[in-house]
Amino acid sequence: MKATVHVTLKNGVLDPQGKAIGHTLSSLGFDGVDDVRQGKFIELNLAETDPAKAREQIDAMCRKLLANTVIENYSIEIAD
Amino acid sequence: MKATVHVTLKNGVLDPQGKAIGHTLSSLGFDGVDDVRQGKFIELNLAETDPAKAREQIDAMCRKLLANTVIENYSIEIAD
Repeated sequence: MKATVHVTLKNGVLDPQGKAIGHTLSSLGFDGVDDVRQGKFIELNLAETDPAKAREQIDAMCRKLLANTVIENYSIEIAD
Repeated sequence: MKATVHVTLKNGVLDPQGKAIGHTLSSLGFDGVDDVRQGKFIELNLAETDPAKAREQIDAMCRKLLANTVIENYSIEIAD
């Protein structure tokens, strides 16, 4: 079972990577771009076949490893 | 207009971050996880209001800055 986890910085947390991308885009001549935020996403392949259990398992992974819940939010998508 | 760009390593390109996540998950006791890949995603807010033009503009951004097309694929989603 495939799953995708998106990890984003919480609103209000400074995102220097996003800022750098925004500045570089505007210096390359791309105007009208603002509020650039960069996050990461992780694709996993799980042996678990029950979607509810898979989600629970991934939620535990996020809290333990994949996301820093002090400054980051995460969302989980289970595919098929 | 909001847009999201997903940048992933092409198949066959070694993903050391993904491998590290996979190993750490299994050492934390999460079994049955394989094929972990990590990518990044970028959220942009564009002044452009025409979806087709916005997509074209972002495609140019990806080729010039956001993705390394030698080793990475990208996909663009335009939200409303």
